Amino acid sequence: MISGSKGRLVGVSLGPGDPELLTRAAWTALETAQCWAWPVVREGAESYALSILKRTPLVPPAQSLPLVFPMTLDRAILTHHWQQAARTILDVLALGVDVHFLVEGDASFYATYRHLERVVRELDPHVESRVIPGVASPLAAASLSGRSLCDGDETVAVIPATVGMEAIAAVLDRFQVLVLMKVRPVLQPLLLLLEQRQIVHKAVFVERAGAPEQQVIHDVSTLKGRDVHYLSLMIIHNHDGEAGLGMKERLESA
Amino acid sequence: MISGSKGRLVGVSLGPGDPELLTRAAWTALETAQCWAWPVVREGAESYALSILKRTPLVPPAQSLPLVFPMTLDRAILTHHWQQAARTILDVLALGVDVHFLVEGDASFYATYRHLERVVRELDPHVESRVIPGVASPLAAASLSGRSLCDGDETVAVIPATVGMEAIAAVLDRFQVLVLMKVRPVLQPLLLLLEQRQIVHKAVFVERAGAPEQQVIHDVSTLKGRDVHYLSLMIIHNHDGEAGLGMKERLESA
Repeated sequence: MISGSKGRLVGVSLGPGDPELLTRAAWTALETAQCWAWPVVREGAESYALSILKRTPLVPPAQSLPLVFPMTLDRAILTHHWQQAARTILDVLALGVDVHFLVEGDASFYATYRHLERVVRELDPHVESRVIPGVASPLAAASLSGRSLCDGDETVAVIPATVGMEAIAAVLDRFQVLVLMKVRPVLQPLLLLLEQRQIVHKAVFVERAGAPEQQVIHDVSTLKGRDVHYLSLMIIHNHDGEAGLGMKERLESA
Repeated sequence: MISGSKGRLVGVSLGPGDPELLTRAAWTALETAQCWAWPVVREGAESYALSILKRTPLVPPAQSLPLVFPMTLDRAILTHHWQQAARTILDVLALGVDVHFLVEGDASFYATYRHLERVVRELDPHVESRVIPGVASPLAAASLSGRSLCDGDETVAVIPATVGMEAIAAVLDRFQVLVLMKVRPVLQPLLLLLEQRQIVHKAVFVERAGAPEQQVIHDVSTLKGRDVHYLSLMIIHNHDGEAGLGMKERLESA
């Protein structure tokens, strides 16, 4: 166990893609930072988080850490890389330097920052950590879509589409707003389901909100047969999904 | 119908309370703005949104509009005030000046900005409008709580607590994460419900995240018999609510 680390671990939320959506706290932290860290899937690979900052005048400090987290389900390989990342971070913290870990979107919202924190603290429980919150992709997507995500007494279900179509279908009618995250792997069956329920017109699709490649698609039927980026989501405003039923009755019938 | 408005309506998300959590886009817009507008419940009343900016060096421009939206369910009174607010805004837009409407939290997340936009456009359909997204309170609250709001394949239900206890109870076991917004009116029965379900320890309470008066309460049982601010929420991490059931099975059994 290493002790006496002086630097702190900071999860810096960058928002979903537009550098103008960084918070002032994130900007100041990065501008004055001595060390940035960011995740890559292999050595030399691009980082989406870092690509957001490449569209700003900010430059990575000399001491910067691309940390390899490979795309694999092999637990031994994963553990090896997480441990290695944690040790690399601890080496920097031991110098009294804060490590600023770059996170696209918000670091509390489907991000790996708190995992990293846990692994680091398994090696040194005294490491201080904080998160600078940021703009999450559903809210950036809503702002681009031209309507609120939710309002009044509306209920919202946020569902990673990776849970599968049966689970999505089960909640589709029961919430007034659905946000389907990481929609890519289920996009085609989802479009079919929306057609069957006759709610295609209630959906809006947003890919890479705020990035130069951003797409906002109001007629989601045009996505039939098309592939999309993995950073994509769908918002479904299902307000009159169960005509005549208020939200309360809707939930009680769940 | 007024036409030829040159100014644009801008919904400026300010985040939940900490001025450091304004985005760069919001800051720049406000710094260069010729007109701010903000909601008040009566003439001369304080505005929570404006109070966030009072903790910054930014000052309201000479042309600033406190707009009265009274706390009443009387439709005639409400309509009168919304119409009046819309006309006041249109007068400024007609001068070619953008109106920056201040919104605490995010303008797409339980905010009235899009309502205002609709009323304005009923008077002049050609008014351009945009939203600058921001940090929503559940994400600021999560960052303060020391753990992620959600991760991996977790599902999140966002429920305005005003929907009532029966509706809350109906979804409590079915999602891995619950965010109960505006928790004040149901706080005491909610604490009772958490006790009955033996999940008091899975909840965290956050009030006015980021503001000087912020409260983060990990032992929510200490809230028994206490009143709280209306800007408060509870996050419940109900991961093992149904032991042995994965999220998919949990939803299917809903």
